[in-house]
Amino acid sequence: MAILLCITQWDVAPWLERLRRLAPERDIRAWPEVGDPADITYAAVWKQPAGILAGLPNLKGIVSLGAGVDHVFADPDLPDVPIARVVDADLTSRMSEWVVLHALMHLRRQRLYDTLQRERRWEDVRPAPGARELRVGVMGLGVLGQDAARKLAVIGFDVAGWSRTPRTVEGIATFSGDGLDAFLARTDLLVALMPLTPETHGILDAALLRKLARDGVFGAPVLMNAGRGGLQVEADILAALDDGTLAAATLDVFETEPLPAGSRLWTHPGVTVTPHVAAISDEDAVGRFVLRQIVRHEQGLGFETPVDRARRY
Amino acid sequence: MAILLCITQWDVAPWLERLRRLAPERDIRAWPEVGDPADITYAAVWKQPAGILAGLPNLKGIVSLGAGVDHVFADPDLPDVPIARVVDADLTSRMSEWVVLHALMHLRRQRLYDTLQRERRWEDVRPAPGARELRVGVMGLGVLGQDAARKLAVIGFDVAGWSRTPRTVEGIATFSGDGLDAFLARTDLLVALMPLTPETHGILDAALLRKLARDGVFGAPVLMNAGRGGLQVEADILAALDDGTLAAATLDVFETEPLPAGSRLWTHPGVTVTPHVAAISDEDAVGRFVLRQIVRHEQGLGFETPVDRARRY
Ligand SMILES: NC(=O)c1ccc[n+]([C@@H]2O[C@H](COP(=O)([O-])OP(=O)(O)OC[C@H]3O[C@@H](n4cnc5c(N)ncnc54)[C@H](OP(=O)(O)O)[C@@H]3O)[C@@H](O)[C@H]2O)c1
Ligand SMILES: NC(=O)c1ccc[n+]([C@@H]2O[C@H](COP(=O)([O-])OP(=O)(O)OC[C@H]3O[C@@H](n4cnc5c(N)ncnc54)[C@H](OP(=O)(O)O)[C@@H]3O)[C@@H](O)[C@H]2O)c1
Repeated sequence: MAILLCITQWDVAPWLERLRRLAPERDIRAWPEVGDPADITYAAVWKQPAGILAGLPNLKGIVSLGAGVDHVFADPDLPDVPIARVVDADLTSRMSEWVVLHALMHLRRQRLYDTLQRERRWEDVRPAPGARELRVGVMGLGVLGQDAARKLAVIGFDVAGWSRTPRTVEGIATFSGDGLDAFLARTDLLVALMPLTPETHGILDAALLRKLARDGVFGAPVLMNAGRGGLQVEADILAALDDGTLAAATLDVFETEPLPAGSRLWTHPGVTVTPHVAAISDEDAVGRFVLRQIVRHEQGLGFETPVDRARRY
Repeated sequence: MAILLCITQWDVAPWLERLRRLAPERDIRAWPEVGDPADITYAAVWKQPAGILAGLPNLKGIVSLGAGVDHVFADPDLPDVPIARVVDADLTSRMSEWVVLHALMHLRRQRLYDTLQRERRWEDVRPAPGARELRVGVMGLGVLGQDAARKLAVIGFDVAGWSRTPRTVEGIATFSGDGLDAFLARTDLLVALMPLTPETHGILDAALLRKLARDGVFGAPVLMNAGRGGLQVEADILAALDDGTLAAATLDVFETEPLPAGSRLWTHPGVTVTPHVAAISDEDAVGRFVLRQIVRHEQGLGFETPVDRARRY
């Protein structure tokens, strides 16, 4: 009965210290110091190396340390045990901060005002629409998409959302499945908040960008992505920015992270880059969440936030 | 029975065209083409020259074309007739967009991320608090302050407000009158949304800035002002930025507008300047509002948004 922390790309030491502090009575180990693999009953993972979990004969469950689980499924030898992911009110709220901030930066032409300030020019920029004149489309109406959509609507934006299965969100027009084209046709500002799955991989491509509204108050549409970099085709986004299909893009996630120094996304005047910080999690809250899932599962209650293996999210 | 448009600093022609289009049956004139002063029963004004209104013997009411009326009271010979000001849902919503945008830019360290992007540096910036960790204080809980406070609270900020008389706003801690020091002591980010009156003139000075919280998540506090430039002492704000009393300031209004090219506010790294565009009004909506006030007053109903001459707002 031990918990294995199996983390790459992050520093494992503070996670080990944190879980041991939160559950001092537990046997908690950090890969690669697994000890006897037969001891491990639960794994808490972030980008675990392929095959490691398959080598744990008594593994009963896996908890992702992030809200997304694409990194868990990247392991081709993933054992067939229940998987949970993090859902946390603080993380959700932070994602909505990022979405509302960057939607307002586009609406209120903040980049142009930044330029005017540098040039000491006192000029107002037209058109100057109010939020109700900007049609925002949220792709993905899960925990994060619904909260962001609701807060965008409170600010006054004209909000719609799209999801795989039909969803009802108060005050928001919703589309699902093959309603995608109709959703895109009424979207001036697209906010991608979907998980990365085989179905959503590369969905933000040239063909999709061409379907966004071009009759909006600013003419060309704007793209924002804080889901996963794998949703986007960066070459298509850059081409769309260059030929005017897109007016601007704000990206928190990238095909390759860290974003390579040679990427044109760093320097394109239409692009705002944030380094995968849209929803940094409170690590103590995540630690408590992970331990709670394990206790629940041990007690036969099941995970609170189970991941569907077929859908992969 | 004629309406006089008395405007300086804005172009009067589109206002004349607009009011005539909205009320084609009316006799509408634009200063300085007053005609017979005895014809004028109502004046719609923006920074009217001193003494002009006093020369209208049959004037029954004045409507300010803006939400603020300090420009009306700047006239020492202001006749003693009722005054109305603009209150408009679209204008209110736009002001809250500005407030939420700039509060989030501070919370989410957008200026630092802008710098990192220019340097192609993939780094997260700490501390990275969530909105609930930032105490926002809204000075002025009128039409604009209440809407902004409510929307800041929805985003998750820890919001309080201060007003002259006690006010109750759901979800927000309120202070009034001599509760000012207690309000400032719990404020990390101060948002000034007060009218300019003899009482509020220069209120944002060195003494006030020193009373803001210094135990917040970012240490030094932040100032935002979209009320009127006359509220602020710009020399004190610059000194406070220089000596670390203030971390940053976002200003939409200035002692002198347009902000003179020589002002250090344009170039100070801690300052964001927007050129009095926080709440640009929909001019047709303002035109309709003005005409509705005049019709109401003619019918003996009084203005919907009367200004108190003693309080001067
Ligand atoms: N940048 C960051 O800092 C950061 C932080 C946290 C999370 N994230 C990302 O955000 C993603 C979303 O998180 P969440 O908690 O909101 O996930 P969630 O609750 O699982 O919601 C996912 C949403 O996407 C929809 N969706 C999935 N596949 C779809 C498809 N093929 N077509 C249409 N819609 C589809 C789902 O539709 P249904 O409603 O029909 O199921 C659901 O509405 C995570 O997976 C993670 O990648 C990023
Ligand atoms: N930058 C822009 O684009 C822009 C656009 C529109 C308006 N504005 C400015 O915003 C200001 C506020 O507009 P509003 O519609 O919210 O005004 P309002 O409804 O009249 O509210 C004014 C608020 O300020 C408070 N106040 C006034 N004097 C005070 C004092 N001496 N001490 C403490 N509190 C005091 C009032 O207290 P009580 O509640 O006790 O009366 C009230 O809460 C306008 O006057 C205008 O200058 C700027």
